[in-house]
Amino acid sequence: MGTIIKELTKVEDAKRLFLNAIDPNTAIAIEMIALIDCPGRVLASSITSTRDVPHYRRAAMDGYAVQSSDTIGASVTNPVMLGVSEDAEQGTCTRVHTGSNIPDNADAVVMIEDTTQIGDMVEIRTQVHPNKHVGCVGEDMQEGELIFESGHLLRPCDAAVMASLGLSEINVYKKPVVAVIPTGDEVVPRTTTQIPPPGKVLETNGLMAGLYVEKWGGKARYCDIVPDMPELIENAIRSNLDADMIILCGGTSVGERDHVPAVVDSLGEILVHGVGLSPGKPTALGIIGNVPVVCMPGYPVAGLVALFAFARPALRKVGNIPDIPDTIIRARMGGKINSKEGYLTYARVVLDGDIAHPLMTSGSGVLSSVAKANGFVIIPENVEGYEEGQGVDVVLIE
Amino acid sequence: MGTIIKELTKVEDAKRLFLNAIDPNTAIAIEMIALIDCPGRVLASSITSTRDVPHYRRAAMDGYAVQSSDTIGASVTNPVMLGVSEDAEQGTCTRVHTGSNIPDNADAVVMIEDTTQIGDMVEIRTQVHPNKHVGCVGEDMQEGELIFESGHLLRPCDAAVMASLGLSEINVYKKPVVAVIPTGDEVVPRTTTQIPPPGKVLETNGLMAGLYVEKWGGKARYCDIVPDMPELIENAIRSNLDADMIILCGGTSVGERDHVPAVVDSLGEILVHGVGLSPGKPTALGIIGNVPVVCMPGYPVAGLVALFAFARPALRKVGNIPDIPDTIIRARMGGKINSKEGYLTYARVVLDGDIAHPLMTSGSGVLSSVAKANGFVIIPENVEGYEEGQGVDVVLIE
Repeated sequence: MGTIIKELTKVEDAKRLFLNAIDPNTAIAIEMIALIDCPGRVLASSITSTRDVPHYRRAAMDGYAVQSSDTIGASVTNPVMLGVSEDAEQGTCTRVHTGSNIPDNADAVVMIEDTTQIGDMVEIRTQVHPNKHVGCVGEDMQEGELIFESGHLLRPCDAAVMASLGLSEINVYKKPVVAVIPTGDEVVPRTTTQIPPPGKVLETNGLMAGLYVEKWGGKARYCDIVPDMPELIENAIRSNLDADMIILCGGTSVGERDHVPAVVDSLGEILVHGVGLSPGKPTALGIIGNVPVVCMPGYPVAGLVALFAFARPALRKVGNIPDIPDTIIRARMGGKINSKEGYLTYARVVLDGDIAHPLMTSGSGVLSSVAKANGFVIIPENVEGYEEGQGVDVVLIE
Repeated sequence: MGTIIKELTKVEDAKRLFLNAIDPNTAIAIEMIALIDCPGRVLASSITSTRDVPHYRRAAMDGYAVQSSDTIGASVTNPVMLGVSEDAEQGTCTRVHTGSNIPDNADAVVMIEDTTQIGDMVEIRTQVHPNKHVGCVGEDMQEGELIFESGHLLRPCDAAVMASLGLSEINVYKKPVVAVIPTGDEVVPRTTTQIPPPGKVLETNGLMAGLYVEKWGGKARYCDIVPDMPELIENAIRSNLDADMIILCGGTSVGERDHVPAVVDSLGEILVHGVGLSPGKPTALGIIGNVPVVCMPGYPVAGLVALFAFARPALRKVGNIPDIPDTIIRARMGGKINSKEGYLTYARVVLDGDIAHPLMTSGSGVLSSVAKANGFVIIPENVEGYEEGQGVDVVLIE
């Protein structure tokens, strides 16, 4: 089998073709989860406040709740003396603490620093206007107010907001299930602790892909390794078409053992095979029914770059997960890096303070280069690399 | 009880005092975990390669493995004809695929594109030098090579590197346990779905603190709400001194119900009470034995800022977790923001593209302002705010 890469698609075009093929109306299912599990999840319905927060007039300061009209003219030199009561009736005041309920009769709070209790009476040394140091009902959130829109990516502070509304469970989108299918005659399971025989390598790409899926908000389904045989690849894909997305690892190039893109094309459609991405050129992107399929190259660094460039945005679209900006560090190149024109190049760098040292190894089979790297300097297609000392954005590999 | 805030400590000084009080020799315990659980964890021992990766000479291309001396002078116009064998003995070549083992006799690979099989023979149309298209033993990692240092924060791609070394379990630091103790007579558990009576509020700060602890790599221990009584606060702290850190929520100000800093001081030492942080001024920081204690203000936004400013760096120091840079978005102010001189001010903003709109509400009790905000613009102590149109860094609230 094996298709031939005739022309490379620009990364930007490949991504657009791929994302446009994902039907936004194929809604991901919804589940109800406990509030405590919400960080990192995406709201599947908007949250409207069903109550006022605060639900009572609260003191914003420690002090005495008063009727403001009782304090008219009060000053240090001319204090007003008020009695003490539980309900701040006229001519009296009521001790309150920050957050306390303010008696109905009161409309202001005098700070404790501006008062002195003398026997049964309290000396008030300042005049307060209505609502002074009073937190109004609904000051934080009003009943009926829209608090979060559907699609909001939830943070710990949002959990606190929802808790203050009395919510204990919320509707979120289910995590998209991504079937990760490693392929290759040479690939053997990681269960063995022995060094495999020559010509065989331990499965690592599927593990890496699955762990990134989980990090990016999906749920990985780790599948068995499939040999380089079209009918077995087809069976593996068919039995995972219930997933929300499929990632195939390896078998994407143009050799006689590279069947993956052709099999995907026979079951659905290959949209792109061969992208102007370095490393990552043999990446193929397709769709089978509503299931997007990323065919990542078997060379691990190329596979990693394909995951970042294509699997991540596709996962987010499938799972209704908002785009999260990369962590970018502004740095200066500590040495020259080259790139090939026509390729969007992910150069691995080691950050030392604000100096980005290029990693000299360029082999896309050398996974340890990623272990040593902090980040990528992404070089556009029409740029031929960067000189030592040049300012660059480093995208952290997280 | 209640102490008095005499002078505000600068945030930077408060942080230094607090972090310096945490003994780096109080090592956090180590545990062994499965490789698949490693992302986000911190290596507790260095990883040295126990094998060469690859462990055999592998073909870097599809083609024929040859003895390079057999190809001398070969060209399109003057090809060399070689027989086919399993072991690439002199005068023959062996079919290989990318990743295949290369026979001992061979020292190079001719790409498939430069060959044609004709009957039993293969036409070789290019001369190759020794090691051409051959991945050497140990090209990726060599036996005995240091791959990761202890203290490395593990990423999914690192899991793949370790998997390729045959590792299935690794030593990491245990997640630091952080006891989160909500305090306050007015605070009631979230278990109720009823609106609490006036003067009572649902517990939210402990939930928020605990969820941030988990996000930042710790393990939250959610404790019961403690009323504003010194002996009960003391009991709650004492029964959590086995934790790696304690966060107390509320009771940090100077009112007659604010006992938390004094109790911490009686059990250990309060290092800082009152910081030049807005919101977050009543924050107190202390240490009891080896256990750092963050007393976060009860006003939720002030509490949130205290978590970011102090609890996060302390948690990282306690857990040997490397510092992770914040996600920063460069933006322009969409309106004026003011700040008070002498305070490091965390102004909440809503990002709309690259415009940062200030949230007008300044109340530190208004948690919904955080729900609406994407990020903080952090205004230094000696700056009096920013004008509309001014360029700012927005730290995403994640």
